[in-house]
Amino acid sequence: MKRGWFITLEGPDGCGKSTQAGILAERLKAAGYPVRLTREPGGTPLAEGFRRLILDPKNRVHPLTELFLYEASRAQHTEEVIRPALAEGIIVVSDRYSDATVAYQGYGRKIPLKTVTTLNQIAARGLKPHLTLLLEVSERSTRERTQGRRKDRMENEKVSFLARVRSGYRAIARKEPQRVKLVNGEGSAREVAERIWAVVRAKIGGKRV
Amino acid sequence: MKRGWFITLEGPDGCGKSTQAGILAERLKAAGYPVRLTREPGGTPLAEGFRRLILDPKNRVHPLTELFLYEASRAQHTEEVIRPALAEGIIVVSDRYSDATVAYQGYGRKIPLKTVTTLNQIAARGLKPHLTLLLEVSERSTRERTQGRRKDRMENEKVSFLARVRSGYRAIARKEPQRVKLVNGEGSAREVAERIWAVVRAKIGGKRV
Repeated sequence: MKRGWFITLEGPDGCGKSTQAGILAERLKAAGYPVRLTREPGGTPLAEGFRRLILDPKNRVHPLTELFLYEASRAQHTEEVIRPALAEGIIVVSDRYSDATVAYQGYGRKIPLKTVTTLNQIAARGLKPHLTLLLEVSERSTRERTQGRRKDRMENEKVSFLARVRSGYRAIARKEPQRVKLVNGEGSAREVAERIWAVVRAKIGGKRV
Repeated sequence: MKRGWFITLEGPDGCGKSTQAGILAERLKAAGYPVRLTREPGGTPLAEGFRRLILDPKNRVHPLTELFLYEASRAQHTEEVIRPALAEGIIVVSDRYSDATVAYQGYGRKIPLKTVTTLNQIAARGLKPHLTLLLEVSERSTRERTQGRRKDRMENEKVSFLARVRSGYRAIARKEPQRVKLVNGEGSAREVAERIWAVVRAKIGGKRV
């Protein structure tokens, strides 16, 4: 049976992961691999609908509601996009996945971690990324990168919330060092892309890439 | 501290519970009680948005996604509407609540019951109705009652699915006979309303009503 690779990019808003997910996908394609680039929340027409509901600054969303919506989006995305692609031997590159929910809803919103991991497990039906690239950038860099953008509800969060998210991501990396690789996200997009490529090759190079 | 009553109406589609929820709310109001009539999925502007997404026959929704969406709707509804009303001593009458998720997503869709009850517990943060009225009607009656309606996605389900939902409701009633009261839903709306009123009075009569 063929089996693809599931690679996720994680990090706080403005860390450059969306840009890097795109570059990584292109690079894998150029190397001849079948690739599916996707993102959370979203990734399917229905889940993109939830994305709009979740991120709309006008909506007053209770933290638990927000958590369940992310999981709804994840369940649909996992069953409709990720599992079928992996079953065909495709490399799936996702801009965020379950770790983001631990960092944002668990550490950021202070929903008990046990609740978050229970729901993550149910929504993904146990699926975990084979490799997660966690982009580390200074608080100043993320502030500069998000400054020009129209802010969504999440990006409007207070500094203390974002500090908790960052520490949450670091805790995840400490807990699962085999899966989660820290990547220095400072410098040009090209420099960061080189660092990511080195990690991806080291991880899956001996197997398929 | 004041504490309201939380009363839910349950049963398969076409059992008459929406009509009866309205009649019960009016009757309690006429008797001088503060009442809040609400429904699931929905009950808040955000949750009504999910309701449209969930029930739209055009959307292909994975069973797990559907489950998470109902729970998202429930979390918002519970925190924004039900808990504040109960804290003010109001009687909340809801057309469906957690039992519907056990019957439809657990028994109907065959999602493991442990998964459904875990999510129900998290979404409601432990809140349970003080009294649940389960309307029992023959399959033929529900078919006749839903025949004229424009069908939503749920109401389009196959006969075998609906049979599982009905047996799920009966299992819930057997498991929690103190909370869940079976009410014969056959006959005119007025006859059924009289039966419901008798149960409600017997249950909360000695206390507040």
